[in-house]
Amino acid sequence: MPDSRPVTLQDVQDAAARIEGVAHRTPVLRSRTLDELAGAQVFVKCENFQRVGAFKFRGAYNAVSRLSAEQLAKGIAAYSSGNHAQAVALAARELGTTAVIVMPQDAPRSKVEATAAYGAEIVTYDRYTGDRVAIGETLAADRGLAIVPPYEHPHVIAGQGTAALELIEEVGDLDTLVVPVGGGGLIAGSATAAKGLLPGIRVIGVEPEAGDDTLRSLEAGRRVSIPVPRTIADGQAADIPGELTFSINRRLLDGIALVGDDRIRDAMRFAFERMKIVLEPSGASGLAALLAHRIDPAGPAPRRIGVVLSGGNISAERFAELVGG
Amino acid sequence: MPDSRPVTLQDVQDAAARIEGVAHRTPVLRSRTLDELAGAQVFVKCENFQRVGAFKFRGAYNAVSRLSAEQLAKGIAAYSSGNHAQAVALAARELGTTAVIVMPQDAPRSKVEATAAYGAEIVTYDRYTGDRVAIGETLAADRGLAIVPPYEHPHVIAGQGTAALELIEEVGDLDTLVVPVGGGGLIAGSATAAKGLLPGIRVIGVEPEAGDDTLRSLEAGRRVSIPVPRTIADGQAADIPGELTFSINRRLLDGIALVGDDRIRDAMRFAFERMKIVLEPSGASGLAALLAHRIDPAGPAPRRIGVVLSGGNISAERFAELVGG
Repeated sequence: MPDSRPVTLQDVQDAAARIEGVAHRTPVLRSRTLDELAGAQVFVKCENFQRVGAFKFRGAYNAVSRLSAEQLAKGIAAYSSGNHAQAVALAARELGTTAVIVMPQDAPRSKVEATAAYGAEIVTYDRYTGDRVAIGETLAADRGLAIVPPYEHPHVIAGQGTAALELIEEVGDLDTLVVPVGGGGLIAGSATAAKGLLPGIRVIGVEPEAGDDTLRSLEAGRRVSIPVPRTIADGQAADIPGELTFSINRRLLDGIALVGDDRIRDAMRFAFERMKIVLEPSGASGLAALLAHRIDPAGPAPRRIGVVLSGGNISAERFAELVGG
Repeated sequence: MPDSRPVTLQDVQDAAARIEGVAHRTPVLRSRTLDELAGAQVFVKCENFQRVGAFKFRGAYNAVSRLSAEQLAKGIAAYSSGNHAQAVALAARELGTTAVIVMPQDAPRSKVEATAAYGAEIVTYDRYTGDRVAIGETLAADRGLAIVPPYEHPHVIAGQGTAALELIEEVGDLDTLVVPVGGGGLIAGSATAAKGLLPGIRVIGVEPEAGDDTLRSLEAGRRVSIPVPRTIADGQAADIPGELTFSINRRLLDGIALVGDDRIRDAMRFAFERMKIVLEPSGASGLAALLAHRIDPAGPAPRRIGVVLSGGNISAERFAELVGG
């Protein structure tokens, strides 16, 4: 009987083979201070050191690499104002195709410039009046482009899962894995890899308090929509889980921890001053949950915890505003 | 005939065996952007990830580990307001002895607290009226303590050299090694290791423009004293090279690059935004020299460059003041 699950451990392992030598095998850092504060051994997977500064390159590259030669000749499209934009632009360049990225007119100039620097064409829209999905889809249909979605695709999810795959390959047994949740692609892929390799592992998602759509959806047993979250963790400001990602996450997640913006700032400072690494707010939320002891406090005490730090794209100015001001 | 040099490759290798499993074998990072800007392959040795946040732990631990059991029972002393203070305090704790650290009354509270947190006794003095060397020596004589100097000791120098030893062991052949110069211990040990392993390598020191005592001394052929430098690179604000370190450096260094504080700020920002790592000003000076194309511009174009980033101890507030304000 064929495996009916949309993403399997084998899919993640196949993705790992595809991204090898193109994506970075990011370092796993330890911190004695963190271990003491968490009361456990903590293994930190540093996706802030990934190409484009975030895990997003893993999924984008895996997805683009599986397109047909014919499709690669036509090009690809994506809509994103964040790390997925740069990830798709770089994946396109690496694979010899062209990318069109739909970005809001008021996206931070640094992000627009970084995306353009990878050779992508930028199409802007007014996010108060325009619908980026409709614009992206019309554009893709007109030009025959393949859309690379930020999380709602098995190849994207399998690619993101390579972060957890690498972590477990490197450090071995873990009893708990902590992963931030935005659209749910990183944790869906990571949970698939982690539970495939270590059936007893607990996988805990982390959402910002203001963006608890996945927690609410898990509690309701169906996808629940919330008002657009106001949080500094812009990469986790989803208002509804993805359909595909939720179908995986409802099966694999053992819990969700919520963290407020103040805890995220504290974690960004901890990462900066104690670990000497730069994290954007979404990238620090897993660390924030750990430092605030929000990882399933009612469950068994974890002894070996893996935490995925998802990204580090933040300007020195914005960092100063949030943490050092 | 015995080797008459004060520090040899074998000494650095012996130090590496002593610090193994106690000091971190710090990661070597790459950055495609840095390679493009430098026009060479650059291998970055991240001593900001070392224990206590700087290379200083290597030399302190090596030196303390070689004291007699009798001396360890009596304790050790050091004078420093910077990273050496924490390094000696931690080395003492790791080796089961006690440390007294002489620090100025107005040292940053965070540094005093970090040093005390490792279990050291802090003795303060007024740096406008007191002489820290005299205070340290009197105290050491009174209590029978061994002084662990920040750079003027073969065991300290050999320990610092393990940074370059590890780098070359990991990445193989390099044609150029770039190392910051303060008192000269890090570069003396690193040059000893590098030239021992790769006789053709060029070793270039980096000093802040305002603190060019080693450059002037090399040009004069003798140790030259300059006014106390005013620079943001506080770890490199030496006003005269060490006697022992200069005797090594005059023999082994191929040149000195100077960088201004603005270039150092640029490099701190580059490290933060592009490499996602935190560097204190002294820790960024090697990177600054590279980004400003100050590495021996008249010499042969380097193809494979190693750079030691010496430390990352800076508060979020101070970073914001220098870079993100």
